[in-house]
Amino acid sequence: MSAPPEVTRTLATFAAETSGVKIPAPIRHEVSRSVVNWMGCALGGASHEALDAALATFKLFSTAPQCTVIGRKERTDCPTAALLNGMSAHVLDFDDTHSGTLLHPSVPVASSLLALAEFLGQSGGKLRGDRFVEAFVIGADVECRIAKGIYRQHIERAYITGTAGVFGAAAAVGRVLGLDADRMAQAFGLAGTQAAGLRAMAGTMAKSFIHGRAAQNGLLAALMAQAGFTASRDVIEAPRGFVDALIDEFDFSIMLDGLGERWELGANTYKPHACGVVAHPVIDICMEARNRHGVQPAQVATLALQVHPLALKLTGIQAPRGGLESKWSLFHSAAAVLIDGEAGEAQYTDARVNDPQVLALRGRVTATADAALGEDEARGVLTLVDGRELKLHVPHALGSLGNPMGDRDLDRKLKSLAGGRLPAARLALLIDECWKVGQLDDVARLPRLAAL
Amino acid sequence: MSAPPEVTRTLATFAAETSGVKIPAPIRHEVSRSVVNWMGCALGGASHEALDAALATFKLFSTAPQCTVIGRKERTDCPTAALLNGMSAHVLDFDDTHSGTLLHPSVPVASSLLALAEFLGQSGGKLRGDRFVEAFVIGADVECRIAKGIYRQHIERAYITGTAGVFGAAAAVGRVLGLDADRMAQAFGLAGTQAAGLRAMAGTMAKSFIHGRAAQNGLLAALMAQAGFTASRDVIEAPRGFVDALIDEFDFSIMLDGLGERWELGANTYKPHACGVVAHPVIDICMEARNRHGVQPAQVATLALQVHPLALKLTGIQAPRGGLESKWSLFHSAAAVLIDGEAGEAQYTDARVNDPQVLALRGRVTATADAALGEDEARGVLTLVDGRELKLHVPHALGSLGNPMGDRDLDRKLKSLAGGRLPAARLALLIDECWKVGQLDDVARLPRLAAL
Repeated sequence: MSAPPEVTRTLATFAAETSGVKIPAPIRHEVSRSVVNWMGCALGGASHEALDAALATFKLFSTAPQCTVIGRKERTDCPTAALLNGMSAHVLDFDDTHSGTLLHPSVPVASSLLALAEFLGQSGGKLRGDRFVEAFVIGADVECRIAKGIYRQHIERAYITGTAGVFGAAAAVGRVLGLDADRMAQAFGLAGTQAAGLRAMAGTMAKSFIHGRAAQNGLLAALMAQAGFTASRDVIEAPRGFVDALIDEFDFSIMLDGLGERWELGANTYKPHACGVVAHPVIDICMEARNRHGVQPAQVATLALQVHPLALKLTGIQAPRGGLESKWSLFHSAAAVLIDGEAGEAQYTDARVNDPQVLALRGRVTATADAALGEDEARGVLTLVDGRELKLHVPHALGSLGNPMGDRDLDRKLKSLAGGRLPAARLALLIDECWKVGQLDDVARLPRLAAL
Repeated sequence: MSAPPEVTRTLATFAAETSGVKIPAPIRHEVSRSVVNWMGCALGGASHEALDAALATFKLFSTAPQCTVIGRKERTDCPTAALLNGMSAHVLDFDDTHSGTLLHPSVPVASSLLALAEFLGQSGGKLRGDRFVEAFVIGADVECRIAKGIYRQHIERAYITGTAGVFGAAAAVGRVLGLDADRMAQAFGLAGTQAAGLRAMAGTMAKSFIHGRAAQNGLLAALMAQAGFTASRDVIEAPRGFVDALIDEFDFSIMLDGLGERWELGANTYKPHACGVVAHPVIDICMEARNRHGVQPAQVATLALQVHPLALKLTGIQAPRGGLESKWSLFHSAAAVLIDGEAGEAQYTDARVNDPQVLALRGRVTATADAALGEDEARGVLTLVDGRELKLHVPHALGSLGNPMGDRDLDRKLKSLAGGRLPAARLALLIDECWKVGQLDDVARLPRLAAL
């Protein structure tokens, strides 16, 4: 085997030294879209019982009111805020998804950067919008590139936002702190040695914890590197490093291909539905049956789906035991959407999972994997009780790169998720400033506007 | 493959429900030995620059003076104290070692329990010595059993204290908190999903961070489970769980064999030398050459060593670049001991590594692996410049199970490591109370006595 390229040094130098002027306008605009989506998810997730339980512990220890916990009254120290806001932003499984790796780019990057912005304000500093945008783009680029290099095998084992995502937070925060390439490489080392997150946690609060930790641990890695804390400078490619320890199949070249020319944030996507993204084509199939063909739940004899293999792997739970787990059941999603015509938070509750009508319909849905389909594609044959068959096909689910959510869709999503949690005038101001994040004098305004 | 046994549930039930009276007196005494050793290491490591650098970051966020940072003036919140004291206890590579897995049992368990004891005191609670001893034995048992089941392959990839150790802290803290078996299993889930620690961090400050994180993360896992935070209940054996995600070779039965009858703490060992334990037989070889045969450094033409393969794997660095890395070079250890007659902290400094006499002698040391040797065994042929050959053999290195450190050795080690850091009378009292830890009314006395 030839010696691996200097992946860590190359990415660290890129993160530390790349001029922000190289970032094209559409990529900068994608930061606004990501922030709008992140803010909606965090406001929507803020009242989740996972946050209540986490805060019950962390408020015992975090007594410095440095930063906002989005959508709540509590304030915590900066790393704890990064954790909790990352948890809120993920807990509804409604956050953004990097096309091709299923990494959720904004959870590590936005959660760490906005907590840092408020922390800097404690000592009279600030984080200007243009610098935030650069750091966001670069952090997302680093985490998604690392994810691309390990995706194929790694996604079977771990939550890739928990493992690769921690590098994104380290890169973004390290960029704002002005780390040089050598310290940045060591920040990556400290981040990489905290990479963790088991897929066995699906359906429990621990899943959101894994995602929040990526933000918190990457933030700490950059801050510790700034303080002179040392770590390996070649964590990604080193023997017994990140890649060597975690997987057998990897591709270093894909991590560096087109670096500084092609931006991974351009492949970011946003979910219209509050569940695992690979189930979204199935949801659109059911929407089509209901809205275009007028199918009523009582008319459905069977629904035989064909989906990308990953859809069954990640959302193949046949009989979910509760609301959180139901987000990982395409069978539940199909039944709930055929009945309710929606796939919002209300469809993924314990009550909805155990509703007799949903249960009965869920039992009439089957699915088979077809590797010839795209990840954003699904086919279905819906047999009606009168014997008729409907053939259904969704080539690109809404929210995929081939059929993206528009800015107005994202606007509506944020408003819907905020759900009266903030006064109307403040919400309107918050949405406006999220869109204009690149022009803000201090992005700490955003979390402050989102505090209860 | 047959279905795996319910390892997580079995270990969680054991940790939650086992009666402390089952623990035999020699195992209880081993807790005192472990605490004496831990305290010495933590006092000795407290002034290390890794602690200065970590505190420079954490003092920005940890403003609640709940717990002692051992051997220092600062106080921090409870989880941060568990982290920092775990780092101090490990940073000199002088901490205890579970025979057969190389896990360092006290770093996660003692660091988390003593921080918890002080935290409980904040609200008028306390942790009695007898309950501390039970929790210590059980925490060490859980982490060492998990480590035994994954050791063979895992030690190639990760620091096993960073991965298996986190379960020890969760079990010990969960036991004190009175978690029932179901919450204990979920605490193990939260612990297991934070399991991390790359061997590529060898020779950097990040290595101690990995070890301290095991204490901190396990502590948080137990506290969060107590607050109702949910996680997988079968993390160890679940598909995409701890074992499945991290390794291919494992043995679940060894994790449960003799549970509650044979106690892993009985296999704990303590280092007489401040470096990787697998290099200790080489150190004893050099001590023997010097002390028994009167060999002077200038007389050494070559030293050809035969060592267990793990000694080369873990301490095979030929040309260490600094003090921390030199603890992982049996070549440096051999040269330093032949010259200095000691392998204490003074032998593992940047200055000693770059000393011309040490460098020259190091270059005359060679080593080959011999799988027929024990891990605590070494052979050597020392050729003198006059052509004579000395054949040397250490069947069991000092500090191994076959040649253990005595209580007085541990007493001296603590005094030597404390090195004038505490007033003499207070140090004497601290040593006395460490030995009597099982009879203390509140073990929070120990960290308080060890504060500057």
